[in-house]
Amino acid sequence: MSKPQRYCLFITYDGSNYCGWQVQPNGISIQQKIEETLSIVLGEKTRIFASGRTDSRVHALEMRAHFDSHDTDLRKLKISLNGLLPPDIRILKVEKVDQEFHARFSCKKKIYQYHIHTKKILDPFYRHYRLHFSKPLDKEKIKEGIGYLLGTHDFTSFANEAHRGSAKNNPIKTLYRIDCIEKEFGLVFELEGDGFLYKMVRNLIGSLLDVGQSKIPPQELQNILKAKDRKKASAALPPHGLFLIKGIY
Amino acid sequence: MSKPQRYCLFITYDGSNYCGWQVQPNGISIQQKIEETLSIVLGEKTRIFASGRTDSRVHALEMRAHFDSHDTDLRKLKISLNGLLPPDIRILKVEKVDQEFHARFSCKKKIYQYHIHTKKILDPFYRHYRLHFSKPLDKEKIKEGIGYLLGTHDFTSFANEAHRGSAKNNPIKTLYRIDCIEKEFGLVFELEGDGFLYKMVRNLIGSLLDVGQSKIPPQELQNILKAKDRKKASAALPPHGLFLIKGIY
Repeated sequence: MSKPQRYCLFITYDGSNYCGWQVQPNGISIQQKIEETLSIVLGEKTRIFASGRTDSRVHALEMRAHFDSHDTDLRKLKISLNGLLPPDIRILKVEKVDQEFHARFSCKKKIYQYHIHTKKILDPFYRHYRLHFSKPLDKEKIKEGIGYLLGTHDFTSFANEAHRGSAKNNPIKTLYRIDCIEKEFGLVFELEGDGFLYKMVRNLIGSLLDVGQSKIPPQELQNILKAKDRKKASAALPPHGLFLIKGIY
Repeated sequence: MSKPQRYCLFITYDGSNYCGWQVQPNGISIQQKIEETLSIVLGEKTRIFASGRTDSRVHALEMRAHFDSHDTDLRKLKISLNGLLPPDIRILKVEKVDQEFHARFSCKKKIYQYHIHTKKILDPFYRHYRLHFSKPLDKEKIKEGIGYLLGTHDFTSFANEAHRGSAKNNPIKTLYRIDCIEKEFGLVFELEGDGFLYKMVRNLIGSLLDVGQSKIPPQELQNILKAKDRKKASAALPPHGLFLIKGIY
């Protein structure tokens, strides 16, 4: 059976109850849920290819994934998928795309956010969506530290070892911006880059919080980058404060 | 052992994982969790008395409850309670109050909100906190309907039969206001009254949504009130869109 048409799904999900995006031997993944549902709706086994992976308990506002299939009605497909998928995964849009489109390789930039609740008491309604961190932070030092991270660098020091079986990723990445946005509840860090290594956002923001607590001087981030050694940087922050906002194509 | 001091707890909770406020034979209640934790922290069996009950999956931004105990440090008590309670229940504040204070009987007014997500796709991050209702609604009719509900009425038509063992509640209540607030995601109904009968908010908003869909003419709400018959009003809305905002003392 020929599959002449390529489609792109725009997906949002609350990652709290999943083992992450990618199919894993233990636990239910978001990819698995969507592939199972797509296969039922399309009447044939269907694989999807996402712009990247997210870890267990990491969320996405707009993750894109492509798949190939026969010709089908886009509106009905979206309604059927949302009817069958659990309510913590929603299909925002389905588009027909060119055969050349690839959710991962056509993606030029990605935007992530990391949400931090800085008040003494963690709002129970956001316990799955914000890191609770109520120690004082020096925002001027954080902003100075951000300056050392922007631009094109080898980010090996801020990358955990990738999953077994993952393709080796080029550690040289460009960070276009890290905005530290003050909110009523705390801080949102928004990062835009041409690509992110495994746990890179959580490692970067972990080091910036150490800078904000004066555990590391801001300029030390330069040396950490140069060392190309994961052990030099701070611990990764927990996953639940992290959101993939979108890919830019 | 004398218990000379009365205390008031200010509590917020995500009701998603509980059978409601009140201790029930089946399921874990918020009251039970707090009483167990208080009893551990204070070193003696402690009962709490709330301003009212909330049903399973109903949330609270500020519920007050009082208890009597020996003299204790308020700051330490709050920290100990939040350390031991699950993260979906938080103690916002503990205050010493007069012996005459009673969380239920001293409460003069209550404010509730009911949240409705009117977009085609329910945001997965709010699936436990908003009713998904994407049919068109005539807001002018809803506002007209609200006019018939405000003031002092016998609200028997909008009250479900209370739980067994509940004290008989006077069905004559005063509704001071129902604001229908337009949000980016949909509608928030905010109600302020001197008291609310069992499922009254969910019944009132259920009828207003029927008015907004032109299933009931707005002025018919007058006849429903006069009938004093629960069967005349619309079905109760589901619990998860409902928030107790606070009691006014």
